[in-house]
Amino acid sequence: MQLGVCYYPEHWPPQRWADDARAMVEAGISVVRIGEFAWSRLEPRSGELQFEWLDKAVATLAEAGLSIVMGTPTATPPKWLVDAHPEILAVDEHGRPRGFGSRRHYCFASPVYRTQSERIVRLMAERYANHPAIIAWQTDNEYGCHDTILSYSPAAREGFGHWLEKRYGDVETLNHAWGSVFWSMEVTGFDQVEAPVGTVTEPHPAIVLDYRRYCSDLVVTYNRLQVDTLRAAGVSVDIIHNFMGLFTEFDHFDVARDLDIASWDSYPLGFLERGAHDEATRDYYRRQGHPDFAGFHHDLYRAMCKGRWWVMEQQPGPVNWAISNAAPLPGMVRLWSHEAFAHGAGVVSYFRWRQAPFAQEQMHAGLLRPDGSQSRAWPELLAVRDELPVLAQQDITTTPASVALMFDYSAVWACQIQPHAADFDALELHLSWYSALRRLGLDVDIVPPTAALDGYAMVVLPCQVIADKALAQRLDTARTAGTRLIIGARSGSRTPDFQIPANLAPGPLTPLTGVTVDQVDGLRPGARPRLTLPGSPQGHALRWREQLDEKRLKACVVHRFEDGMPAVTDHQGVTYLTAWLDEDSMMAIFAEASRTADIATTILPEGVRLRRRGTLCFAFNYAPEPRHLPDHLIPESGYLVGDATLSPAGVSIWSIAH
Amino acid sequence: MQLGVCYYPEHWPPQRWADDARAMVEAGISVVRIGEFAWSRLEPRSGELQFEWLDKAVATLAEAGLSIVMGTPTATPPKWLVDAHPEILAVDEHGRPRGFGSRRHYCFASPVYRTQSERIVRLMAERYANHPAIIAWQTDNEYGCHDTILSYSPAAREGFGHWLEKRYGDVETLNHAWGSVFWSMEVTGFDQVEAPVGTVTEPHPAIVLDYRRYCSDLVVTYNRLQVDTLRAAGVSVDIIHNFMGLFTEFDHFDVARDLDIASWDSYPLGFLERGAHDEATRDYYRRQGHPDFAGFHHDLYRAMCKGRWWVMEQQPGPVNWAISNAAPLPGMVRLWSHEAFAHGAGVVSYFRWRQAPFAQEQMHAGLLRPDGSQSRAWPELLAVRDELPVLAQQDITTTPASVALMFDYSAVWACQIQPHAADFDALELHLSWYSALRRLGLDVDIVPPTAALDGYAMVVLPCQVIADKALAQRLDTARTAGTRLIIGARSGSRTPDFQIPANLAPGPLTPLTGVTVDQVDGLRPGARPRLTLPGSPQGHALRWREQLDEKRLKACVVHRFEDGMPAVTDHQGVTYLTAWLDEDSMMAIFAEASRTADIATTILPEGVRLRRRGTLCFAFNYAPEPRHLPDHLIPESGYLVGDATLSPAGVSIWSIAH
Amino acid sequence: MQLGVCYYPEHWPPQRWADDARAMVEAGISVVRIGEFAWSRLEPRSGELQFEWLDKAVATLAEAGLSIVMGTPTATPPKWLVDAHPEILAVDEHGRPRGFGSRRHYCFASPVYRTQSERIVRLMAERYANHPAIIAWQTDNEYGCHDTILSYSPAAREGFGHWLEKRYGDVETLNHAWGSVFWSMEVTGFDQVEAPVGTVTEPHPAIVLDYRRYCSDLVVTYNRLQVDTLRAAGVSVDIIHNFMGLFTEFDHFDVARDLDIASWDSYPLGFLERGAHDEATRDYYRRQGHPDFAGFHHDLYRAMCKGRWWVMEQQPGPVNWAISNAAPLPGMVRLWSHEAFAHGAGVVSYFRWRQAPFAQEQMHAGLLRPDGSQSRAWPELLAVRDELPVLAQQDITTTPASVALMFDYSAVWACQIQPHAADFDALELHLSWYSALRRLGLDVDIVPPTAALDGYAMVVLPCQVIADKALAQRLDTARTAGTRLIIGARSGSRTPDFQIPANLAPGPLTPLTGVTVDQVDGLRPGARPRLTLPGSPQGHALRWREQLDEKRLKACVVHRFEDGMPAVTDHQGVTYLTAWLDEDSMMAIFAEASRTADIATTILPEGVRLRRRGTLCFAFNYAPEPRHLPDHLIPESGYLVGDATLSPAGVSIWSIAH
Repeated sequence: MQLGVCYYPEHWPPQRWADDARAMVEAGISVVRIGEFAWSRLEPRSGELQFEWLDKAVATLAEAGLSIVMGTPTATPPKWLVDAHPEILAVDEHGRPRGFGSRRHYCFASPVYRTQSERIVRLMAERYANHPAIIAWQTDNEYGCHDTILSYSPAAREGFGHWLEKRYGDVETLNHAWGSVFWSMEVTGFDQVEAPVGTVTEPHPAIVLDYRRYCSDLVVTYNRLQVDTLRAAGVSVDIIHNFMGLFTEFDHFDVARDLDIASWDSYPLGFLERGAHDEATRDYYRRQGHPDFAGFHHDLYRAMCKGRWWVMEQQPGPVNWAISNAAPLPGMVRLWSHEAFAHGAGVVSYFRWRQAPFAQEQMHAGLLRPDGSQSRAWPELLAVRDELPVLAQQDITTTPASVALMFDYSAVWACQIQPHAADFDALELHLSWYSALRRLGLDVDIVPPTAALDGYAMVVLPCQVIADKALAQRLDTARTAGTRLIIGARSGSRTPDFQIPANLAPGPLTPLTGVTVDQVDGLRPGARPRLTLPGSPQGHALRWREQLDEKRLKACVVHRFEDGMPAVTDHQGVTYLTAWLDEDSMMAIFAEASRTADIATTILPEGVRLRRRGTLCFAFNYAPEPRHLPDHLIPESGYLVGDATLSPAGVSIWSIAH
Repeated sequence: MQLGVCYYPEHWPPQRWADDARAMVEAGISVVRIGEFAWSRLEPRSGELQFEWLDKAVATLAEAGLSIVMGTPTATPPKWLVDAHPEILAVDEHGRPRGFGSRRHYCFASPVYRTQSERIVRLMAERYANHPAIIAWQTDNEYGCHDTILSYSPAAREGFGHWLEKRYGDVETLNHAWGSVFWSMEVTGFDQVEAPVGTVTEPHPAIVLDYRRYCSDLVVTYNRLQVDTLRAAGVSVDIIHNFMGLFTEFDHFDVARDLDIASWDSYPLGFLERGAHDEATRDYYRRQGHPDFAGFHHDLYRAMCKGRWWVMEQQPGPVNWAISNAAPLPGMVRLWSHEAFAHGAGVVSYFRWRQAPFAQEQMHAGLLRPDGSQSRAWPELLAVRDELPVLAQQDITTTPASVALMFDYSAVWACQIQPHAADFDALELHLSWYSALRRLGLDVDIVPPTAALDGYAMVVLPCQVIADKALAQRLDTARTAGTRLIIGARSGSRTPDFQIPANLAPGPLTPLTGVTVDQVDGLRPGARPRLTLPGSPQGHALRWREQLDEKRLKACVVHRFEDGMPAVTDHQGVTYLTAWLDEDSMMAIFAEASRTADIATTILPEGVRLRRRGTLCFAFNYAPEPRHLPDHLIPESGYLVGDATLSPAGVSIWSIAH
Repeated sequence: MQLGVCYYPEHWPPQRWADDARAMVEAGISVVRIGEFAWSRLEPRSGELQFEWLDKAVATLAEAGLSIVMGTPTATPPKWLVDAHPEILAVDEHGRPRGFGSRRHYCFASPVYRTQSERIVRLMAERYANHPAIIAWQTDNEYGCHDTILSYSPAAREGFGHWLEKRYGDVETLNHAWGSVFWSMEVTGFDQVEAPVGTVTEPHPAIVLDYRRYCSDLVVTYNRLQVDTLRAAGVSVDIIHNFMGLFTEFDHFDVARDLDIASWDSYPLGFLERGAHDEATRDYYRRQGHPDFAGFHHDLYRAMCKGRWWVMEQQPGPVNWAISNAAPLPGMVRLWSHEAFAHGAGVVSYFRWRQAPFAQEQMHAGLLRPDGSQSRAWPELLAVRDELPVLAQQDITTTPASVALMFDYSAVWACQIQPHAADFDALELHLSWYSALRRLGLDVDIVPPTAALDGYAMVVLPCQVIADKALAQRLDTARTAGTRLIIGARSGSRTPDFQIPANLAPGPLTPLTGVTVDQVDGLRPGARPRLTLPGSPQGHALRWREQLDEKRLKACVVHRFEDGMPAVTDHQGVTYLTAWLDEDSMMAIFAEASRTADIATTILPEGVRLRRRGTLCFAFNYAPEPRHLPDHLIPESGYLVGDATLSPAGVSIWSIAH
């Protein structure tokens, strides 16, 4: 449990570096990330290398005792490179190159850019591979930021043909898998396939899905190129990438397979406006962020890299890039920091050390203000610094939770490609189920569809659109071993080729669930079919409701909608939901399932969340009002931090060692 | 009164075709449409023809006793054709070619595509012209679907110049007709005229109107090319096109002049979201569609081809292409089928036989599910099959209605080109007047502005923007013969050259109406000037209110707004409305006018509609609740179908023979 | 105080001109503007000049005794010129040329268009420079209309490099000023700098600001080219441009420096929909316009050209280009006319004489209808004609107001470039402060940031984002001399290079205000932190709230928000506001400040405004209901026009001579 910070020595006069390093150490910071975005300083003109300043910066930080994470600068190809090779630019869905003047303008499919990336990464690695202060390398920066995964450049189109050839072997197979006979879309060569963009009406869903897989794979191979280059040049320390929350344009699990540590950049306030929350919720949490935003992502990234994960960038004040940029409620920077550690983070690193007075992020707070004075986050940083040693005396091993929630990037893609009902957003649905579990006081592990499910008392699949037999088998094995399964609507409704399964939805999950879906009723925003659940008197479906073939129904119907249609079924301990249900209904369903699975739950006060790590239990209050911990949670042995009343942005921590 | 279905043999293994054909016949289906979209199967590579599979499909269906409608496949030019001739692609308003990967990507103005279309149509016709099972041919598919009428390709721009030269003869005439002197827009050659797109502010309305006429004419000549090709190759059976509801980008009357039968594709649920209804209406009718959507289009297409019309595609379950795709209320498929027959349809054909598990329409229901099992529509289909013979024993001759509503595509164009007040949508206004008439229990004929008006007791013109002297004359003749005329605001407000008439609005209708409009008050959404009408206590104007020149006023003012401005005038039996009035006010006005014209009206319960055909009277309940027929409608001789209480989606039919 | 009209002789048969001229004179009109937009008539083909018709039009109008304003026709380059030189077209932010077919399609940066403009202006000037009836020339028409200032043509990009070189001298200076090191945006040559458009995420704010300055300067030099050409050809009379209200894409002060008279085009109804008003306000004022729209612009344009200003185009009825085009409430044309004179106008000129029956503006009212009959504005015109002589007997010298409101175009740009909080619109904030002052019955002078502030009792700066030391000095001098200063949030928050000042905001205004801003809380729409002010019980912040560094605070806190944060501070008579406050709160603050500054205020009834000119006091009622003047305002000597009760759209005028 270490603290870190992001630092851009090239933004400041060299004479300030030593003072900065000293101040970092005094504030309890031990890790500093540098280097990313610095290409124009490392190579101002093609081939004209200037590494001396970076040598000095590394030396200065190392001398102060800081550990360094070195970032590769490939997120910002400089102007001379774009001018020499304009074909490296990504191309948007309207056919326009994405211009120079900000960042992430490159196309992952560009062979030229891969060559250039390999070159600059190699040069950096050759120079710094063996520097003792460098404890890790970061590849690039926030893959996918600003919607930069999907590119429609000529290089991307050409690469797609090759990718398809590798996947399908021959065009007959491709035509058959896609059902290209529909609307005369058949091709007679892989080079005939167009990127699915600019079509008169919606493009073919199977082509879109394959294009998204292809673009995701481009990120994987691009990142792997950097990893391989670093390793080839002698880098032996950890390699990290800093992912971003709510980004689903590529499969983070796939990229993480080549990394040692997964990290993510945590901006709870900036993302509040992007999440699917109503206005009242956004107003209530505007200075705190949604209470499950950070937690969900902590749990997601913990699922990668064998549990090793960091927060690489932690918001320390207002950001500049949201629609409205709120100032955090006093205490939130401390809360967010502890929450990350509670979920298992190795390092929490703040972005950034000193606010830059210039350029796009001039309104992005740092730990210091532009004039070098301490920002409002400073005392909170010091508080965390002082509290961490107390916690470190406890067992802080992160152990598996009782409950696992399955998350699959392809489910998000499938529902974006074919929403069928307005605003069916699979990520939102996953977040809603996650919130329902967390409001019951549960710790949650997020797992990919390929995960082993052994040992979980309960596994929930909000919307596992594409399910194969192997998954069905793993689920059945878990069920047999006593795991409670809860499977949401749309699960198993598509084959990997984006077809309706031959036995209809839920396809391979049919034997497990005992249901067959014969028709879907897409619900417009005003349509809210009601059901009554214990604990959720206002329960209703939204967006999506399936009709079951009652003749083939093997499950028993546990709850029905007011008009008699099945809402919740059970088949040998496997619950199936025919609809997207409101969050309170999900809480009621999870509470009941937890009871049968012998998992203890607690309905937490609004805005309060719990999380256990080793022998520590943390409570966090996201509400802007004080909250009291439920009586039965109050520890007999007293608190390590805080007490039974959580002030706004308050944190309490106690030991649950026996 | 026959039942049909749309079938794509190329989507299924040949061994399944015979079973499918047999099942169709058993279900009461006698007509099957095939062939459309199959170009890539008929000609997988340029010149490589493969008609054998279609020979076999035709033979199989014919053997089962089915009559075939053969569709030409031109809505989906295949990839090899697009690659060889990219200039056949339409170009959108941003100058981007509309790409391959869905359908309708061709430009109507492309000479190359006309040549190719003629070729493939000729090849099909030469092969199947004399096949005895083929009872009709369908040209292309849904002209205009996905906003594909307006194209800005180089070919379209060039053709526009020729079209203008033909219309105006010389540029002086054109400059004068358009008033091009304004903003120095004069041209000195027809080749100088640009398509009205991409201008700094709004383009010249007269140019836009001419461009829309030109693009509409392109559809006419393109369709005529197919008709002429079919006839030249020996086709002697009926030629049909399947139009789409709510599509107004080209003049359907003009295209229909070259056809034997007009047909349209009826998707009441999908189009509910596109119609101009408020949220409460959309929620109430979400599983039924608006009660006047299908009726309006039935009456519209009956106005073409001397009354011969079909429903070529009838929605049999949820579709896939709306914003939210609702499942129909049980009974609606039967209701929609009977309603089409009530309005005079020759065939009601369902789209489609079996739901495809692949491609864009995989979530579009068929009569069968993807696995071949019977969908929820199946029993409703069988019910219709069994009820039709009872009805066929009656006189089912469709006779003219008492009331005619005039509809002119150019009125829609004119109001789109120059709305003047937010959301002035002429089609919506026509639908509102239609609804007001239908809620009074009236049968309605829709007529084009060129129609003879003899014999109608009442003729209503919601918004006949461009009126010429010939129309004025026909209206005056009708008035003299006792026809009650009701003329809406904006009528006669533009010359065919999109100028304000020399005598101001309503131009040629001035003598008839006795009014002169001297100023328009465009009403923002919150402006609702009130008037009080018997039967409409909340009466108000919306969007549009005209001020009359009181010095020139010859009509008497029948109703005024609260502020004293004239709302409704009468001049020798001709009613003029100065404003867009709410639908309830229109009902009150129509009820009063009907009384004076000796037309019987009945205020129907919400969601109920009536329609007479020959000696049959049909009642339909679109409400999701039961409805009782008004007492005086209850037949003494009992019901052929149903009874006095209409269940949700209920149908009652009785004889009104004397 | 003269009346004028805009006339397009080329739209009408020459035989009608003399009658028109005679009717103008009879209606009290003495000034007529012609010539603008007539390029295609003056030069139908390249080099083929046809000035004879204009000679005759000038002669006809002159003979009738009318004074002429001659407009240059450069806003509408004709088709032959665009065809010969397509590079004169502006290019939009998507890289598409802005097409021919309306107006203002040229790019200010085009050297070719500058040459062509110089040529046609010179030809006109050579012909008419010494005509005795021509009393003024108008350059072009409404620079900036339809968002035409920003262009991204190759010429514009090239010119930007030169402009930057002139501003910065060398790229090191530029890189440093911009902070281009951020995201590797450094350049090694001025020709490398791209226009800030099409970037992946937001472009660099300093580059955007410079691009906007550059585009503004292009308008200045383009207008100066016309002025210089006119002068070189012998024009000695006044040169005018007609600006547009709410247009802020270029700096009108800069352009006006080359003019003799500033004029603007007043369309209060059309712009009501564009202003930032809520729906209730728009409904209430839909037929009158907002009561401060015209006044604000009158005061703005009076600040240019040493107080000489006109209304060049006054709306005389409905316009055609708003979303919904309302008809003015009877009386409003007269009210708008008197209001312009009250604020100091030299001429009020109506647009247009006769409504054109053709082209884009066919629904734009004129003083005459298309058929030549008198429009509803006619009697109001005659009323003004008859009332002006009475007023002219008084002293009508416009004298400085007690209160000055500072307005700086760059403040609008800065907040558009970096809103930071949703919908932070600096122009809206200025209008809100202006309204608050005017609702207190105050006359207001608008002043640019370079203005001398001597003699004002109160100076208010709503949002002076970029403040330099010279301004700080002028403000301090004024303060020392007793001027009350009120300075709004964001003032002084950026250097001219768009950096945060080294001493943080408010930068150079820190000593004056005694505050240091250490963090900003961007307020989402639902966030409305409350404060309680006398006279404003519902007072609250919206959009923006600053947190002050309390350790550096030298000012005293006068009002706080409910949560204790400072809202209003005072430092030696200088008020600083930490937030955007609602308009009622601003009234309370201004009322209190006026009291201490010994300025008399009156809370006016809703919709009523006052304005003094010389010994005249005018009262205007924008409400659609009658209003009574406050008792203490009622003049003892009676009224020159009207009385103590203002009817809807009513005007009362009395003498305040002592």
